Amino acid sequence: MVKTAYELYYWPSIQGRGEFVRLALEEAGAHYLDVARLPEAQGGGVRALMKVLRGEMGGLLPFAPPILKVGRQVIAQTANILHYLGPPLGLVPAGEMNRLAALQLQLTVADLVAEAHDVHHPISVDLYYEDQKPQAKKRATRFLAERVPKFLGYFEEVLAERGNYLLGRRPSYVDLSMFQILSGLRYAFPHALARLEKKIPRLLELGERIAARPRIAAYLASDRRIPFSVQGIFRHYPELDS
Amino acid sequence: MVKTAYELYYWPSIQGRGEFVRLALEEAGAHYLDVARLPEAQGGGVRALMKVLRGEMGGLLPFAPPILKVGRQVIAQTANILHYLGPPLGLVPAGEMNRLAALQLQLTVADLVAEAHDVHHPISVDLYYEDQKPQAKKRATRFLAERVPKFLGYFEEVLAERGNYLLGRRPSYVDLSMFQILSGLRYAFPHALARLEKKIPRLLELGERIAARPRIAAYLASDRRIPFSVQGIFRHYPELDS
Repeated sequence: MVKTAYELYYWPSIQGRGEFVRLALEEAGAHYLDVARLPEAQGGGVRALMKVLRGEMGGLLPFAPPILKVGRQVIAQTANILHYLGPPLGLVPAGEMNRLAALQLQLTVADLVAEAHDVHHPISVDLYYEDQKPQAKKRATRFLAERVPKFLGYFEEVLAERGNYLLGRRPSYVDLSMFQILSGLRYAFPHALARLEKKIPRLLELGERIAARPRIAAYLASDRRIPFSVQGIFRHYPELDS
Repeated sequence: MVKTAYELYYWPSIQGRGEFVRLALEEAGAHYLDVARLPEAQGGGVRALMKVLRGEMGGLLPFAPPILKVGRQVIAQTANILHYLGPPLGLVPAGEMNRLAALQLQLTVADLVAEAHDVHHPISVDLYYEDQKPQAKKRATRFLAERVPKFLGYFEEVLAERGNYLLGRRPSYVDLSMFQILSGLRYAFPHALARLEKKIPRLLELGERIAARPRIAAYLASDRRIPFSVQGIFRHYPELDS
């Protein structure tokens, strides 16, 4: 059997939205190339990412990374990529309604990710954080007081209904994404998250359960896992962690 | 043949994200109830929406409206609902890869919708526009100068590659959503959009082609179509339309 070769195209120096795809590929032990992290001499680097972004690799033109290439198929939008990968990677329960449930939860994860990003970019993604600091401080205050408790409280409630994992008995790509959300929020806003922890015991257990999975633990300990930084979606600016 | 009865749950007084679902149901001539727009005495009103939001109608707990109920299935997240409805409503080309392509485009539409909303709510969705006006003015300037041209330029390029519609020869739910985006931007930012129009001739033609479809034209002329207003996603505040 020839293994499917997945090519992931994402910014090579940040976790970003690409990390949700990386975690799924790693958990499944899939054979994949993180193309832009390869040397340019091997067809990698940002140059390769730009080629696929400009549509030069064929397929439907993507708007932004991450982009997954599988043979001649070019698939973009994080939740769409995970929806596609779920069945072949064994990371979604069988059946159309379960796939829709997973997509529904993943889109809610995506909403939280977008809001977490906009905390440090409330005016424009095209300006530096340093150019929108007063607005970022205001947005962070509301994000941590209202939005994070609302989103995490929702997922805590889903877990209470569903069991050990968000879709029931077995881990899905949504659980991997939830681990990433929790890790990101804890990196960016350690004080705010510490105050919230007693309200989300099930989510915290889920996060620990995912981190302890052998392939995820090996991945997190490897140099394939790019560290969190103030270039990514989740950024630790102490002044925003009220 | 018994027609499938779709129940849509959404805020009864705004187009909002529910409108993307309404347009698909209307174009297909589907039998549906816009439940929260029915009188409370008939099981409608915001009270009905709250019941489904609290999970009292069963199914996976939703985070936010719109929500579609089909028999005992409860489906949330706009793009997820449209992904589900595409095949039975005949609003997506056949085949898994076409469904993924449609979802990919719809998620990019969703990104633009979220950014259009945050123009008037840059600090928090939980504050009034009046409490974040200076920041909204700054965000609007960047949104209209950079983000709208980038998004619409992208869709214009997809149309140039694909043909009369975003997925090729026949209209899909993504085309209906694109019509809604163009209508919303034209309502909210008439001056800014007028300056952009010569760069998006294919999109404008697409919008006109959708508006002229018999069921859509009948819908737009009916009182089922809620008018745009400053309560919705696309809001006309003249001070933001630079």
